Amino acid sequence: MKIKSGDIILLLSPDNKSFMIMVEEGRSFSSHMGILDLSSAIGKRLGETIVSSLGNHFVLLNPTVEQKMMKVRRTTQIVYPKDAALILFKTDVKAGAKIIESATGSGALTIALANSVAPSGKVYTYERKEQFMNNARDNVRRAGLCEYVEFNCGDARDGFKEREVDVAILDLPSPWYGIPASYEALVPGGRIASISPTYNQVERTAEVLRETGFVRIETVELIMRNYQVKKGKIRPDNRTVGHTGFLTFAFKGTGDSVSLK
Amino acid sequence: MKIKSGDIILLLSPDNKSFMIMVEEGRSFSSHMGILDLSSAIGKRLGETIVSSLGNHFVLLNPTVEQKMMKVRRTTQIVYPKDAALILFKTDVKAGAKIIESATGSGALTIALANSVAPSGKVYTYERKEQFMNNARDNVRRAGLCEYVEFNCGDARDGFKEREVDVAILDLPSPWYGIPASYEALVPGGRIASISPTYNQVERTAEVLRETGFVRIETVELIMRNYQVKKGKIRPDNRTVGHTGFLTFAFKGTGDSVSLK
Amino acid sequence: MKIKSGDIILLLSPDNKSFMIMVEEGRSFSSHMGILDLSSAIGKRLGETIVSSLGNHFVLLNPTVEQKMMKVRRTTQIVYPKDAALILFKTDVKAGAKIIESATGSGALTIALANSVAPSGKVYTYERKEQFMNNARDNVRRAGLCEYVEFNCGDARDGFKEREVDVAILDLPSPWYGIPASYEALVPGGRIASISPTYNQVERTAEVLRETGFVRIETVELIMRNYQVKKGKIRPDNRTVGHTGFLTFAFKGTGDSVSLK
Amino acid sequence: MKIKSGDIILLLSPDNKSFMIMVEEGRSFSSHMGILDLSSAIGKRLGETIVSSLGNHFVLLNPTVEQKMMKVRRTTQIVYPKDAALILFKTDVKAGAKIIESATGSGALTIALANSVAPSGKVYTYERKEQFMNNARDNVRRAGLCEYVEFNCGDARDGFKEREVDVAILDLPSPWYGIPASYEALVPGGRIASISPTYNQVERTAEVLRETGFVRIETVELIMRNYQVKKGKIRPDNRTVGHTGFLTFAFKGTGDSVSLK
Repeated sequence: MKIKSGDIILLLSPDNKSFMIMVEEGRSFSSHMGILDLSSAIGKRLGETIVSSLGNHFVLLNPTVEQKMMKVRRTTQIVYPKDAALILFKTDVKAGAKIIESATGSGALTIALANSVAPSGKVYTYERKEQFMNNARDNVRRAGLCEYVEFNCGDARDGFKEREVDVAILDLPSPWYGIPASYEALVPGGRIASISPTYNQVERTAEVLRETGFVRIETVELIMRNYQVKKGKIRPDNRTVGHTGFLTFAFKGTGDSVSLK
Repeated sequence: MKIKSGDIILLLSPDNKSFMIMVEEGRSFSSHMGILDLSSAIGKRLGETIVSSLGNHFVLLNPTVEQKMMKVRRTTQIVYPKDAALILFKTDVKAGAKIIESATGSGALTIALANSVAPSGKVYTYERKEQFMNNARDNVRRAGLCEYVEFNCGDARDGFKEREVDVAILDLPSPWYGIPASYEALVPGGRIASISPTYNQVERTAEVLRETGFVRIETVELIMRNYQVKKGKIRPDNRTVGHTGFLTFAFKGTGDSVSLK
Repeated sequence: MKIKSGDIILLLSPDNKSFMIMVEEGRSFSSHMGILDLSSAIGKRLGETIVSSLGNHFVLLNPTVEQKMMKVRRTTQIVYPKDAALILFKTDVKAGAKIIESATGSGALTIALANSVAPSGKVYTYERKEQFMNNARDNVRRAGLCEYVEFNCGDARDGFKEREVDVAILDLPSPWYGIPASYEALVPGGRIASISPTYNQVERTAEVLRETGFVRIETVELIMRNYQVKKGKIRPDNRTVGHTGFLTFAFKGTGDSVSLK
Repeated sequence: MKIKSGDIILLLSPDNKSFMIMVEEGRSFSSHMGILDLSSAIGKRLGETIVSSLGNHFVLLNPTVEQKMMKVRRTTQIVYPKDAALILFKTDVKAGAKIIESATGSGALTIALANSVAPSGKVYTYERKEQFMNNARDNVRRAGLCEYVEFNCGDARDGFKEREVDVAILDLPSPWYGIPASYEALVPGGRIASISPTYNQVERTAEVLRETGFVRIETVELIMRNYQVKKGKIRPDNRTVGHTGFLTFAFKGTGDSVSLK
């Protein structure tokens, strides 16, 4: 499979920096290591290199979902890959799934969700602020995933119009306002995930989940350490993100399971 | 969708313990909170409960991929969910992907991979020890994912027979022996992931990846904290797994990118 | 300096287990690696070994303050060494300091404090439950530090009788009840430290510290990883304590600094 | 006790920034929150405030050992407080102790050691580079601890001239070169601590410690999380130092304990 005009690729510089760009005849890209003529990528295979004006080789790669997430234009704090990964896994998002997300924010998590539900599932994402929604839609489009996402301008407090969805994901300053609507929209046994930076949010979220009829409520946090792996000098990196958020997960029970908790 | 005989479900006890079982007419299940007549689950919906001989309500849930992984019969140390989640995400495993895995071990990661590549992809898994492979196959079957997995009795050192696969995953005591075979089997730009508990393994793995022509080599570790979320008493849990493994990721470059590193 | 009868020493077994015992003529000690005749330690020097009935060599060491803490008879959860170390350091406990501690608990932290204020300082420790206090006094005596500690049977809510102390340390389920008494007892600019397992305790502690006139309030947590260091197999240990407590530190301001916060 | 000219104090600004300065008649100090006339501190008590030209109140505090360490002029990476605290604790540094330190670096750890051995102990510190030593001596002097430190211009490889010291502390790029000299200088049963950023250093340090006759070798790492404690918004801070170093501790055994390991 050869690279052609219109493809979105990842350019990897010799010093391990990456750039997500669209290949186009006659277009060029200016980097810290020289100018690249993007026409020269056309007809090449992934893994091959093109050479900058300063003689530096850049590797041509397919962007993974992580890179698509990290390259979004940000109007809000985005969900980090480590957290997105665990959310996808714990809520069992896969091809064909129907997912509600509120709020859309910059659309980084929307991209990860859409990438996993393709080709037969759908992400229904809700965002109150039109400006955020428009930016998110652009980001999802650039990632080539628009057909798996339906954008809604709206607030979780007003409810979601979908029913029998598999998963609901809340990334809200007051997640508890989105819990009743999520309960209504979810299939019995459906999964919910909520991400919040403070303990106070977690405390109230867990309480409202319990009262609403969710079961198996669980809160975790992931701390990721990056490593410098030079021969004879292996060590944890200094550049560690101290904190992103707490992740709370639960399953939708029915009326008769509420009294259990 | 009502539960019927033959369905694999998750039974959640009032004290939050879970059991993965197959529903069958006339079968019963003995738990620490009483005996359950599994016939009583037939015709119920997910999220509803059945009652044990001691009067305890158990919620009926669909097992997620995490629970399917954690419930395997273990002949080896399994890959933990937090690590599986990041491996799936970083290597961008999704519907339709072709994946090589070596070694199979107990098949826990195999289940996670199969769950994500379904319905159109395939996991090619390699295991040297026939006894391990048979146990893993039973585990994958119980998880209902056999059609997405091809089991091979073999050693990574002898090469893989597949070509143009998207992802190669190494969970080996000496991961470096599996790197040349992975390079050959991968599509250009394809992703590799390796999991190892010691720094010495990471050091050599990264070195051999570099020499073999892989680029964008990265090593990370996830530390997961569980939280106790009781109202007015939120705190990190004491039950934290201190260490599972280091995860190393890379992309397949081509001949001309080798000299860069 | 040779070991003599009456000395408290640490016996280190070949498999790195340690036992704190008092050497006495004619006394023996039964371990998992054989019986030791403690008379044989008399006249030896630290660092030398004695031999058990099964032929195993045990090294004779001086117990450090850490071992004295960890070997107390426990009636309560003790403060861990990592936390004790930071408390001593952040509150600048050293020879000659006057310290208030509430509550005494099992006396483990009392031992660490006494060890640091010797030979010219004093620890004034308060414990409501007489049974705990008696056990703690025995523990401090066994550690050979009784002369630096004054035991009081009392509750922090009723105030402390000392004035112009350098440091106050609170290890209480409701630390806020001990804050006004600590403020009164401390020298201006004096330091306070509080240890608590939950966020809710931290939240209220910080609030009451602020209201009472403490400044430079800071909360931290230490996570300690132990490493297995075998040649060619270095790795973090699985045996990691997930959580002990949050440490809150502050300085006593005067009336006119209260309004600042 | 009132503040007088010549005292070293800590000035705490309303936004919680601190400055270590010497009070002098007629001297002023320019901060981000206005100019302070230091004469106005004379005659005040600790905990009281002085007012800047912009009307901001600064609290007058006694600097603790932590602040003395952190305010050194740095020519090298310094040992962090969390690590210094554990080193002091694990090696049981207290009043009267005799300590060898190599290398001195910027003298931050030297300050912590001197603070703890005072008034009757001594720190013998070794530094190869005269320029570093002079800077460190200035730092120790500013902290008011010079009388407890003896500065030596020298390399650990050439041995230490002291004998029967209680503790040896190594902060060297190649700690193993300092191990034989430490063994010779230590009292039997004496403690050694080594701090290093990489696993490779830890691996070799532990090996050489074992070969040289040290026992009870242990390697740990401290990860410190800072918390933001605002009412209703408690959360871990983003500003976390990802990695400082690994700490290895051991005890000096005698000839006959070497064979054990």
